[in-house]
Amino acid sequence: MPEIDKGLIREGERLDDLQRNGLVILQHPNRFCFGMDAVFLSGFVKIKAGANCLDLGTGTGILPLLLSAKTKASHLVGLEIQPGSADMAARSVALNGLTDRIDIRQGDIKCATELFGKGSFDAVTCNPPYMAAGTGLANPEDAMAIARHEILCSFEDVAREASGVLKEGGQFFLVHRPFRMTELLLTLVRYRLEPKRIRYVYPFADREPNMVLIACQKGGGRNLIHEKPLIVFDAPGVYTKEVQEDFGF
Amino acid sequence: MPEIDKGLIREGERLDDLQRNGLVILQHPNRFCFGMDAVFLSGFVKIKAGANCLDLGTGTGILPLLLSAKTKASHLVGLEIQPGSADMAARSVALNGLTDRIDIRQGDIKCATELFGKGSFDAVTCNPPYMAAGTGLANPEDAMAIARHEILCSFEDVAREASGVLKEGGQFFLVHRPFRMTELLLTLVRYRLEPKRIRYVYPFADREPNMVLIACQKGGGRNLIHEKPLIVFDAPGVYTKEVQEDFGF
Repeated sequence: MPEIDKGLIREGERLDDLQRNGLVILQHPNRFCFGMDAVFLSGFVKIKAGANCLDLGTGTGILPLLLSAKTKASHLVGLEIQPGSADMAARSVALNGLTDRIDIRQGDIKCATELFGKGSFDAVTCNPPYMAAGTGLANPEDAMAIARHEILCSFEDVAREASGVLKEGGQFFLVHRPFRMTELLLTLVRYRLEPKRIRYVYPFADREPNMVLIACQKGGGRNLIHEKPLIVFDAPGVYTKEVQEDFGF
Repeated sequence: MPEIDKGLIREGERLDDLQRNGLVILQHPNRFCFGMDAVFLSGFVKIKAGANCLDLGTGTGILPLLLSAKTKASHLVGLEIQPGSADMAARSVALNGLTDRIDIRQGDIKCATELFGKGSFDAVTCNPPYMAAGTGLANPEDAMAIARHEILCSFEDVAREASGVLKEGGQFFLVHRPFRMTELLLTLVRYRLEPKRIRYVYPFADREPNMVLIACQKGGGRNLIHEKPLIVFDAPGVYTKEVQEDFGF
């Protein structure tokens, strides 16, 4: 781990240890902090050595940072529309000495294909806003609201742009909420992103799932594997062995 | 339980106890015997008192028999294309003294709407063949092959006919294999059967799911509940408490 350059930390920011290869990340408690969703997605991603990978709506850069440790991707790009988050993500990349492998770009998901060009990536990841715009929304300019609600982009925008920037046969990995599954599958298929692997995340073995991890292949054939359930807790506050061992909780 | 009329049992047939309200069922070990699929589906079905319910491809009549005990449906119809199975199902209904509540009809799923009329049922159930025709098939005239493979009807036929015979707002309950999920959802939605509840069945808590239970509403709105997982075994040969208590295994 490189020596921490404290000059890269702004007031109100917190430097968190990612419990993985000595990685650190800047977060701002009043803005959006990454959740288990991003961590579980990072473990679900399978990409080849040398892959060129784009994270749509990277926030604080959590996915490119974790994927730099968990995969042999040669190049990771994080696209983030909010300048404050993009700046913080870029400083996290610098703090980890990863500027040669990770690029943070400030820009709009809706223009990703225009920004990067058609068929320019082997893999795309996304931890998109889960909630439709206008559902229980306090302040639509708030950084947290933008990360959680489809204010600046819809799921259709995400699927269209993921498909646009992917090479034929490339992979799209996402995490979302199970209650939107029908719409997710219909939209993914419409953009030729064929679901190949699905894994549900259950907080407890006897509770409803609250997340779903989906891996798609652009132009892939119709055969779908459902993986074993990812169960988070054995008891309140007690993480399962898998979550402790694989994700460092 | 009525006294058993042994004259209704043919050579090679076995009379099994359904472990529910004293119900019995005729099965023929050389033909198709019902599996856990049908039993789990019967527990997943929620229908109102007085409902008129159709089971598409009823086989030995397992679903109408179980639903006669588990629901307050006033009338249950089982449609079965194979004359041998339909006859056996009708004799099981008679053996249980349920001829006033359950009708077994011999006929083709593909003609269900024509047979029963549009919008004639409040609920439809189906435990369809899981495998596409032509995949690892020994004998296409074999009763087991017909029950397991889409030889005589495709999933599209099932969805189209379920939608056809259902009243607006009526419910369709099915069990299928998770690997066909994308096609199932696309097809159901095409026939206005909107998925409302999904439950995955996992043989063990750390294994891939091998069944999925789906409840749809004809013309329903897009909001989907995923239920807690149905886990079958705690250890090899040891059923979970839920499976023992709710399903009598």
